[in-house]
Order: sequence, then structure tokens, then C-alpha cells
Amino acid sequence: MEFWGAEVKVGEIVKVDNKESDVCIHLSQVALGESKKDKPSEPVVVYLKVGEQKFVVGTLNKEKFPQIALDLVVEKEFELSHTSKNASVHFCGYKTSVADEYPLCS
Amino acid sequence: MEFWGAEVKVGEIVKVDNKESDVCIHLSQVALGESKKDKPSEPVVVYLKVGEQKFVVGTLNKEKFPQIALDLVVEKEFELSHTSKNASVHFCGYKTSVADEYPLCS
Amino acid sequence: MEFWGAEVKVGEIVKVDNKESDVCIHLSQVALGESKKDKPSEPVVVYLKVGEQKFVVGTLNKEKFPQIALDLVVEKEFELSHTSKNASVHFCGYKTSVADEYPLCS
Amino acid sequence: MEFWGAEVKVGEIVKVDNKESDVCIHLSQVALGESKKDKPSEPVVVYLKVGEQKFVVGTLNKEKFPQIALDLVVEKEFELSHTSKNASVHFCGYKTSVADEYPLCS
Amino acid sequence: MEFWGAEVKVGEIVKVDNKESDVCIHLSQVALGESKKDKPSEPVVVYLKVGEQKFVVGTLNKEKFPQIALDLVVEKEFELSHTSKNASVHFCGYKTSVADEYPLCS
Repeated sequence: MEFWGAEVKVGEIVKVDNKESDVCIHLSQVALGESKKDKPSEPVVVYLKVGEQKFVVGTLNKEKFPQIALDLVVEKEFELSHTSKNASVHFCGYKTSVADEYPLCS
Repeated sequence: MEFWGAEVKVGEIVKVDNKESDVCIHLSQVALGESKKDKPSEPVVVYLKVGEQKFVVGTLNKEKFPQIALDLVVEKEFELSHTSKNASVHFCGYKTSVADEYPLCS
Repeated sequence: MEFWGAEVKVGEIVKVDNKESDVCIHLSQVALGESKKDKPSEPVVVYLKVGEQKFVVGTLNKEKFPQIALDLVVEKEFELSHTSKNASVHFCGYKTSVADEYPLCS
Repeated sequence: MEFWGAEVKVGEIVKVDNKESDVCIHLSQVALGESKKDKPSEPVVVYLKVGEQKFVVGTLNKEKFPQIALDLVVEKEFELSHTSKNASVHFCGYKTSVADEYPLCS
Repeated sequence: MEFWGAEVKVGEIVKVDNKESDVCIHLSQVALGESKKDKPSEPVVVYLKVGEQKFVVGTLNKEKFPQIALDLVVEKEFELSHTSKNASVHFCGYKTSVADEYPLCS
């Protein structure tokens, strides 16, 4: 097991191309970063795209939902994006590999 | 482990018929999709039907509960539905199989 | 792993007598069902009784806490009850057995 | 795996002295019990003391946070306490032992 | 498995240098400690720094979010910090080691 994290800045899409065939990424926390300006609170829709399917995983809001706990597993390519115009969104979690989890096998 | 997701559109029921005998689907996140119209916030009851039993797993609300974290496991046929008239509901989670989890066995 | 769910209706106690010696029930979600009348929001205390001990696992409320995520494990007899006068409470989770989890052993 | 629970009454400290060397207690739910009087809502700080270190694990509040989900593991002696003057605090979770989890070994 | 906790006082950074090569720290709970003064509620941004990357894991608030549940895994050096000027932030979780989890191997 190993920490995994990504910051998705305003207007960006982060594409993760997980080349290691036996590794899964667990997404467990999504949090709104600090906004540079004291803009009014906006709902920030958070997307995860896997293959051709794009899912809403939740909606952040500086005042009401500054973070969301998740328990998602993604194994190959995926894309993270959001609708915030004022702040980054931080994704954290951890990587697991079959070799890590089953030391008996190696 | 593999990502699993489903979008249940307004008025639809998604039936999942999990043919693989050794696979479980873990439902871990339910989130309200974007609504096309700026309708007032409505409570959206989310249902999971397994066999003849239909359960309320939670109630979403655009303003107050845009997402719900779950930790449910469903192994065979199940149906997902909701009462929203304005937005899809997105279900995410992951699939596990005995073969994935117990590489020693194969 | 197998889905497990129970609906506890108004005024009822659901007693679960888990006869299978190697099975655990994981309670992971408690949600307020739909109320038949448009009664004002009441706090609904949710109880789990194991042996002689009765615990409050949480308090539901139609407006503020329509669902609670849990991570509880109960292995033998237990009782589920609540104080709602207007709506069922739905308990969901999953069953695990030693045989399911340790296919090597069988 | 086995259910574990403790009620910590007003003004009490519950000391848990886990003598079984291969057992862990998982604390997964903390909930405010019913208050006997209709006193105004007070913040209730919940403490876990392990060795010489005393940690705040969260703050309950009858109106706003009647329960908290945790995912803590404590293996030896620990103490649970809280600041409520009107209600018990209920701690629930489960016990695991190496022998339970690794039936292969026995 | 073993309890793990750290209190990060006002203005401090806690650096954790996990020398044991086969140990992971699971961070599962972040809670705002008691504030000495009755200052107005401030948003408290909580940071986790792993290597050169610094992530926001969430935002605490005495009135609205006195605690956050996490599910993060950190294996080597990391730093915990926060922006509170009035209260400590308490981090709790547990340590796991390959030897603990796989007694078969030893």
C-alpha cells in the first residue's frame, strides 16, 4: 500500500494512465482546495470518467461540503475533473498491488 | 478489483443481472447528477431491490445531501431506482471476484 | 458475501437469529423510509440490542439525517428497533462467512 | 468477528483492559444516547485515551451531530470518556482476533 | 494492528518519519480539539504533505464540521499541518504491518 494523491486545478482534467497491470488506485477523499479570491460559495460537481462513462461522484461546496469521503477503486485509465472556477480539487487515496497484498504469492 | 458504475436516468430502473457467479458488486457512492432545469430542491429517495425486497438506501437532496456514501454488497440480480424528476442518480463502486481476491487459489 | 437487509416497520422489533455459526452480518446503512403522512420531522432513535445490552447506534431525522452509515458486525442474535411513529427504518448490509472469505479452507 | 459495544454514562470513564493478546477492538460508531431532560443542545467532546495520550475523536451535538462514524483500532488498554452532562454516549464496533481472521493458521 | 494518533498544536507541523519498512499508517479520523478561547468559528484547512506534494484533506469548522472521517494510507515520511489559530487538530488511525496481517508468512 502506498499513498496516492492528485490535485486537479481550475479548468484542468487529470488523466491517470495506470500502466502497472496489477495495481489498483483507491480514491477515498476529495477536498476543495483554498480559493484565491473570496468568491461566493459555488457548487462544484466532481467527475470521474472511466472508459466512455462519466460519473458524478459528488458535489463539493465551500460552505456546506468542503470534502467528500469516497470508497472507489479504479484500475486502468481514468480522468478526474470538476466545475470549480476558484479552487483546485484534491483527490487522495492509496495504491494497492496484488504483490503487496499477497506476499505469500511472491 | 474493477471499477463499477451505473447512471440511473429520470424515470428509469436499472436492472443489473450479474451472471458471473463469483463476482460481487460493492456499491459505495450514490450522487445526484446535474439537473437540466433550475428546479427547486426535492428529496430524492434511492431504492435498491434485491429479490422481492425493496429497500430505501437513502434520500438525496441537491441542497442538503448531494451524495451518500454506502458500503453495500450485492451478488446476483438487483435493481436500482429513484424518485428524482430532474436529475440522474449516479451509482459507483467496484467489483470483486474470488479469483481476484485469492490469487493463491488459481 | 451476500446482500442482507431488513425493514423495521413502525412499532416493530426485528429479531435476527443468525443460526449459521460461521456467518457475520455487517450492518452498513440505516435509512428512513417514506412516511405515509406529511408529518413534521421527528428525531428517530435507532437501537441495536445484542445480548442484554441495548445501544443507540444513531438518530435519524427526515430533514437533517435521512440516513446513517455504519460499520457494525453482529454474529448471533440481535434486535433492531426505532422510535419512528411515521416511517419504517431500512437496515442494509451484507453477510460474510468464513467459508466465503477463505476458499482455501474448503 | 464479534460485536463490541460500551455505554459511557454521564460523568463516567470506561476503561477497557483488553487482556486477550491477539484481539483488536475496532471502534466504528459513536452515538449520543437519549437525554432525560429536554436540555438545550450542548457540544459533547468525545475522548479516547491510549497510553498517556488523550485524543479528541470528535464532537457530538444532539441537533447537529447525533452520531459520528469512526474507523479506529485499539489493541490494549484504553479509556473512553465525554463531556455530556445530560446523556450517555454509546460506542459500538467489533472485535477481531488473529485466529478468527486466519483460520488457516489454527 | 495498533492504534496510532498525533496531536498537531497551533502553529506546529508534525513530521512523521516511519522507519519501519513494512509498516503503513492509516489515517482515519481528524478532529478539532477544544479551543481555549471562545473565538468565533474559523474554517481550519487540514494538510497532508507526502514527498513534495501537499494536499488539502479537508476543512474543519467548530460549528459545522468538528471532525472528518478519512481513509488514507501513508507509508513513509509525511507531514501533518493545519491553519487553526485556536485549537489543536487530533489525527487518529492505526498502523498495520505485513507481519501483522500475514501471520502465515512468519
